[in-house]
Amino acid sequence: MKTQQFVVIGLGRFGSSLALELMDLGYEVLGIDRNEELVDEMSDHLTHAVVADATDEEVLKSLGVRNFDCGVVAIGNDIQMSILAAILLKDLGIKTVVAKAISVLHGRALEKLGVDRVIFPERDMGVRVAHQLVTPNLVDYIELSKEYSIVEMKVPACLDQKSVGELNPRARFGCSIVAIHRNNGILVAPTAMDQLNTGDIMVIIGSKKNIEEFEEVVNE
Amino acid sequence: MKTQQFVVIGLGRFGSSLALELMDLGYEVLGIDRNEELVDEMSDHLTHAVVADATDEEVLKSLGVRNFDCGVVAIGNDIQMSILAAILLKDLGIKTVVAKAISVLHGRALEKLGVDRVIFPERDMGVRVAHQLVTPNLVDYIELSKEYSIVEMKVPACLDQKSVGELNPRARFGCSIVAIHRNNGILVAPTAMDQLNTGDIMVIIGSKKNIEEFEEVVNE
Amino acid sequence: MKTQQFVVIGLGRFGSSLALELMDLGYEVLGIDRNEELVDEMSDHLTHAVVADATDEEVLKSLGVRNFDCGVVAIGNDIQMSILAAILLKDLGIKTVVAKAISVLHGRALEKLGVDRVIFPERDMGVRVAHQLVTPNLVDYIELSKEYSIVEMKVPACLDQKSVGELNPRARFGCSIVAIHRNNGILVAPTAMDQLNTGDIMVIIGSKKNIEEFEEVVNE
Amino acid sequence: MKTQQFVVIGLGRFGSSLALELMDLGYEVLGIDRNEELVDEMSDHLTHAVVADATDEEVLKSLGVRNFDCGVVAIGNDIQMSILAAILLKDLGIKTVVAKAISVLHGRALEKLGVDRVIFPERDMGVRVAHQLVTPNLVDYIELSKEYSIVEMKVPACLDQKSVGELNPRARFGCSIVAIHRNNGILVAPTAMDQLNTGDIMVIIGSKKNIEEFEEVVNE
Amino acid sequence: MKTQQFVVIGLGRFGSSLALELMDLGYEVLGIDRNEELVDEMSDHLTHAVVADATDEEVLKSLGVRNFDCGVVAIGNDIQMSILAAILLKDLGIKTVVAKAISVLHGRALEKLGVDRVIFPERDMGVRVAHQLVTPNLVDYIELSKEYSIVEMKVPACLDQKSVGELNPRARFGCSIVAIHRNNGILVAPTAMDQLNTGDIMVIIGSKKNIEEFEEVVNE
Amino acid sequence: MKTQQFVVIGLGRFGSSLALELMDLGYEVLGIDRNEELVDEMSDHLTHAVVADATDEEVLKSLGVRNFDCGVVAIGNDIQMSILAAILLKDLGIKTVVAKAISVLHGRALEKLGVDRVIFPERDMGVRVAHQLVTPNLVDYIELSKEYSIVEMKVPACLDQKSVGELNPRARFGCSIVAIHRNNGILVAPTAMDQLNTGDIMVIIGSKKNIEEFEEVVNE
Amino acid sequence: MKTQQFVVIGLGRFGSSLALELMDLGYEVLGIDRNEELVDEMSDHLTHAVVADATDEEVLKSLGVRNFDCGVVAIGNDIQMSILAAILLKDLGIKTVVAKAISVLHGRALEKLGVDRVIFPERDMGVRVAHQLVTPNLVDYIELSKEYSIVEMKVPACLDQKSVGELNPRARFGCSIVAIHRNNGILVAPTAMDQLNTGDIMVIIGSKKNIEEFEEVVNE
Amino acid sequence: MKTQQFVVIGLGRFGSSLALELMDLGYEVLGIDRNEELVDEMSDHLTHAVVADATDEEVLKSLGVRNFDCGVVAIGNDIQMSILAAILLKDLGIKTVVAKAISVLHGRALEKLGVDRVIFPERDMGVRVAHQLVTPNLVDYIELSKEYSIVEMKVPACLDQKSVGELNPRARFGCSIVAIHRNNGILVAPTAMDQLNTGDIMVIIGSKKNIEEFEEVVNE
Repeated sequence: MKTQQFVVIGLGRFGSSLALELMDLGYEVLGIDRNEELVDEMSDHLTHAVVADATDEEVLKSLGVRNFDCGVVAIGNDIQMSILAAILLKDLGIKTVVAKAISVLHGRALEKLGVDRVIFPERDMGVRVAHQLVTPNLVDYIELSKEYSIVEMKVPACLDQKSVGELNPRARFGCSIVAIHRNNGILVAPTAMDQLNTGDIMVIIGSKKNIEEFEEVVNE
Repeated sequence: MKTQQFVVIGLGRFGSSLALELMDLGYEVLGIDRNEELVDEMSDHLTHAVVADATDEEVLKSLGVRNFDCGVVAIGNDIQMSILAAILLKDLGIKTVVAKAISVLHGRALEKLGVDRVIFPERDMGVRVAHQLVTPNLVDYIELSKEYSIVEMKVPACLDQKSVGELNPRARFGCSIVAIHRNNGILVAPTAMDQLNTGDIMVIIGSKKNIEEFEEVVNE
Repeated sequence: MKTQQFVVIGLGRFGSSLALELMDLGYEVLGIDRNEELVDEMSDHLTHAVVADATDEEVLKSLGVRNFDCGVVAIGNDIQMSILAAILLKDLGIKTVVAKAISVLHGRALEKLGVDRVIFPERDMGVRVAHQLVTPNLVDYIELSKEYSIVEMKVPACLDQKSVGELNPRARFGCSIVAIHRNNGILVAPTAMDQLNTGDIMVIIGSKKNIEEFEEVVNE
Repeated sequence: MKTQQFVVIGLGRFGSSLALELMDLGYEVLGIDRNEELVDEMSDHLTHAVVADATDEEVLKSLGVRNFDCGVVAIGNDIQMSILAAILLKDLGIKTVVAKAISVLHGRALEKLGVDRVIFPERDMGVRVAHQLVTPNLVDYIELSKEYSIVEMKVPACLDQKSVGELNPRARFGCSIVAIHRNNGILVAPTAMDQLNTGDIMVIIGSKKNIEEFEEVVNE
Repeated sequence: MKTQQFVVIGLGRFGSSLALELMDLGYEVLGIDRNEELVDEMSDHLTHAVVADATDEEVLKSLGVRNFDCGVVAIGNDIQMSILAAILLKDLGIKTVVAKAISVLHGRALEKLGVDRVIFPERDMGVRVAHQLVTPNLVDYIELSKEYSIVEMKVPACLDQKSVGELNPRARFGCSIVAIHRNNGILVAPTAMDQLNTGDIMVIIGSKKNIEEFEEVVNE
Repeated sequence: MKTQQFVVIGLGRFGSSLALELMDLGYEVLGIDRNEELVDEMSDHLTHAVVADATDEEVLKSLGVRNFDCGVVAIGNDIQMSILAAILLKDLGIKTVVAKAISVLHGRALEKLGVDRVIFPERDMGVRVAHQLVTPNLVDYIELSKEYSIVEMKVPACLDQKSVGELNPRARFGCSIVAIHRNNGILVAPTAMDQLNTGDIMVIIGSKKNIEEFEEVVNE
Repeated sequence: MKTQQFVVIGLGRFGSSLALELMDLGYEVLGIDRNEELVDEMSDHLTHAVVADATDEEVLKSLGVRNFDCGVVAIGNDIQMSILAAILLKDLGIKTVVAKAISVLHGRALEKLGVDRVIFPERDMGVRVAHQLVTPNLVDYIELSKEYSIVEMKVPACLDQKSVGELNPRARFGCSIVAIHRNNGILVAPTAMDQLNTGDIMVIIGSKKNIEEFEEVVNE
Repeated sequence: MKTQQFVVIGLGRFGSSLALELMDLGYEVLGIDRNEELVDEMSDHLTHAVVADATDEEVLKSLGVRNFDCGVVAIGNDIQMSILAAILLKDLGIKTVVAKAISVLHGRALEKLGVDRVIFPERDMGVRVAHQLVTPNLVDYIELSKEYSIVEMKVPACLDQKSVGELNPRARFGCSIVAIHRNNGILVAPTAMDQLNTGDIMVIIGSKKNIEEFEEVVNE
């Protein structure tokens, strides 16, 4: 199976981070930016990096952009360029086009133009960080629905040496410990015998309200 | 127990999103920005929003910033202002100071100045989006360690109507389905009998390599 | 029957000319521009003229823009604003949205966003003027198809006092004089007896090639 | 007969469109602009395109501008340059000098300086588009006088399959159908027998008031 | 006889100096400039001084500019404004319009537009100063023709106490002393008896070549 | 005798005009300006023209400026540069340094720094032009003192064919005709017999008041 | 005796520090700056602080500047303003005028204009800091001549508890300890008995070469 | 012993003066600035001068900055660059890092980041100059403590020919003359016999109050 190829337009903080991670994951990435300095910085780390105007159809064609599997418009603040680049990627026949939006209206425009997925990185990251701020032990989380979450939470000192059975989160708080992460190993589906240690990270599933209750009690 | 109070300095896309989410979560938020327009937009949605220069110690004092539980420096692109504001928050005695960095060097400066937590929103979001791009069914994920992840993945068409037992992911791929998310309800720790339906979202735990293998097979 | 209402966004040279002509034709026009000076100049000549940001949905709503029959986005050079304003007008439910484009790519974006009609005033006017330059007697013309035109042409001195029969354009050049315009009156479908006078304007229909031949002969 | 030669000063949207149309019509065109990018874009499409300052008499002389038949000053927004270039073209002895004006006062200056024809493209295009907006079926039109027009109008659904005799526009509305344009062919001077079909375009001559009445009735 | 009225447009160094001198000479002066600061400085010294855009016809009309005897366009560096203001003054019917030009081409434009007199102050002053530099005793001069001048020259030390007869300039150098200026009095048509004193100023008429010879000899 | 050498710093309108006139008068001129374009324009017309920063002592030394007879600081609007260049010229030992001032304070600074002569070209030209405006027949003039002038005045139509004796200006107006300038020849000290013709130019000497009276009478 | 009055023009870092120190020393200070913000910051700390243009003679007069004893031109980077303000202060008759220079040429201009003392703060401070960097124990110093200095030096650990007699700097290094500064008290002219303690500061007088030798030996 | 090496970042007025003084004192200096012109001026006077961005870690490493004994951050006005450069110098392991601060907050940041010494050149120089202004005979001074100073003071005319014994400053004013500086020689610890001459400079030690009293009396 051929390696998937990505073209990333805009190599600012978001775009370059995304492009580098794609390289790390083993994919081929063509990076495009009008800013020579940004391209220079990336040129050793991407499959290919070029200084080009991504709103010039001829340029995109000559770069063979039409043969890429996925195009990411990661242009920072220039809504006009973002929109025009997105149109060109769609028109060139790229199957999946993803674009970063910086406002609701910008996002709406991108969707109407047929962009497959619109991302709001700053907005989404603001939400993530807010959750982490209000739950000191929270490491990371997935919001499963409006009501349910999976959270990754540090075992607080007061639970040190307690077994899962003693803690009994399902009975007391209506949420389950689905895994314990310790020394880079993972204990999936721990039993009542398994012991928690300070420094371990518990992965808990449950309704947000229940997890919050659990969090408050163990932090008292 | 008194509601926790946050001061958020910088009400751009990241800062405003963070501030609004904190409000949603039931906390009190004071927003500060030098830009009048940004403050106007936020003033109806935050506990308090003021136009002020966050590098002016007298101003911060007169706003009672020293009594807040947590300060977030969400200043966009001005490293100088970000650093000076962070120093002031620390010096005013705020217990937890969190700051957004836009470069490695900026982050290093913030850490040396005693900032409790440094965030790189664009970089982190770039990484998250990269993962989602290369795994079409991936909805969200938590990276537990260099090796292990929890992922939230859409049930692909080829698994429709299959039971967990038939799929048997632990035996075949070394990873477990810890929950199935269906119609906004959550089925925790599904049994071998439980059936998957297209449109459900499985929450899977396992080593990244195993999850990837699982992902590739079900998508073939 | 209620008078039709137009909202014209952008009161530069093109937008203001369009708005004034609509007023002359007996319609109601709301003019919007961010530039206070332009709005001031128009305020006595339009039904209503306001200084506003046409990319702010709330503003457009508060101006009752949703009740207008037709929206014209006549924004000069700012592609971003043009696109965002066009989206808002469509989303507000205005039946007909017309927008000015300044490049092929801009025009393509507007069409994809559902704009009902895209206009390229400078390009179209360049074409019109080119025709007038190469045909000294040409006053105006309609291009009926790639091949056929109707042209309005001054009667040159050499045809003074000649009757249509003498000239016999249909037989000699394969094109017909459908009207003669003289002293602000119009003689429709002139007969062979009708005489041409210098200063009259003939309305001729025919293939472009034939009209050109006719033009060259009478100008020799 | 020698091919006519045009020099077009200013290769913006209006100037480039005009220059390209002149090329299409078979004439020779020298394009001049100070902007290198604009000249590069045009260089493959015009007889000759040069980067030059059109207010430098020596430059114009060295380009042999004095030998051209017609000069077009299509300079966008710089009234000073437009005026100085127009003077130079006149002084170099070019027979016909045409210039674009962007304001009434600019136009007056050009006329006083002896420019043979002053054009207001945005203003004129605004007027044209206004007419098209208020007459949904209108395709194009020529204003013959304050009172009379020729209009090109789509045959509305309600007239499908009707013969010209049935419709009888001359008797009912005082205006005549001088041609019917169908499938790129033209039927000049249709008879009462000729049938209209949806999608055809009628060319109608008459007083504006009568045409308007006709338009309203058929659109009811 | 009614006092003559001047309108001076542009109150920079040249315009303000001219306006003040006209006031000194007993005339009425209306000064106009867009720059509020310049107008403020002049407002106490002119009959009237207003902040206004001199290219706005309505403004000029409302200031009653049409009733002035003479208009001076002393606009510094903005050729466009200079030209448009000059047109307006002519069109408003002012009998004499004088305008400052900053380049040959600018001057040509002003003349073509009907300006009665075009002035090049910097150029002319450069010429005057050049003459004064090369003739150390020269105080002022009038160039009567390409060949003849009147010069005002300090009596050098070597001529002290000499009579006009002794000096005999007409015989020796072919030029005449038409007046001697001494202690603010003027001795017109001095006789051979009249004596020159150091510090007097002689007014000499003659061909340039002769005056130069004279100058060189007396300065040896 | 060695040709005098001038260095002119600043080649704007005033400086270049002065430099060119010095060349015309047969002197050697070194022109210096920081603006490459201005230097290029002058390079064919001056003995030497260089692009240089005239406030850099080393540069002036390397150009051998210390050997020039006279330095002219004709710098347009930059008071700082004008002052620093003037100091350097004085310090380099140039005998005569002349500088253009643009304000009273600037002039005072130049004088204090030892500049030999300070010139206010725009101010002086404003005064000259004011005189010419209020005396329609005035061609040029020298102000001999607060009270006396020599003026060059066109012979008005009403004096055509009159002899100097008939006009008798000394008796009637207290002023004398010292010369008549006709067809590029000069008639010095005309007698009572000599006749005036329209188109001649009289050179008149007298008190300003008397000349004015004379001027008014002959123009009635 | 009347308190001395200072006017400080320019309230940047140098000017404001100087003005505040003068206040501390008990003098009256009028601060002037064009920058409103700087004036606001100083207004509570100076006798009087005003926003004004210090190159406007009328303004300085109306502020009564002529009655001050000393004027300091502390203008940061604008050489033109610095020079013009200095001239005005001198012309207003202020006895002592001190001015900051930012380049050698600027300093020369100020001196020629009669400024009583020209200061180069950045240059002088650069020199002072250089000395402190190369002598780790150096606290401060006075350069008495090219050869001699007084230095204030920390007593290094190796001299702890040694008496002045034991150290015998005059005999060994040719320099004398004129005072010992200890716990904010000063021991003038210490005897051979007096003991040095780490943390004391010695004031040493001698030739630079001798002090350096002494410094090197005690730091070995 | 190896010569000490300094790296000076920022070659403006302060940095270049400091670097040149270090060279004069016999040390090796590497100067770094982003401004090519400043580097050019210094390149002949420093051991090495390079154009480089001092916030780029790789650049600093490649210049071998880690091997220098002392780093001076003399960056003018850019707080961000100053802070980032200071961090890099510390992280590279340079033993002593000195940095210039332009505000109290800037200084606080530098200290928190571990900078060994923070300098406020403009502020300190302002203080020094203030002292010199209020004591006309003061040449230089060292502030030993809040109370004591050493001052270098010109001998005023009234003390000419007086012996130290006659003056008896210790008895009358409580302060001592520790040295007399005359004709570039130094008389340390003068006796009661030694005579003062106008033009000598006395070095006096004492409490500020006493020195002030002394100063006032001798200046009466």
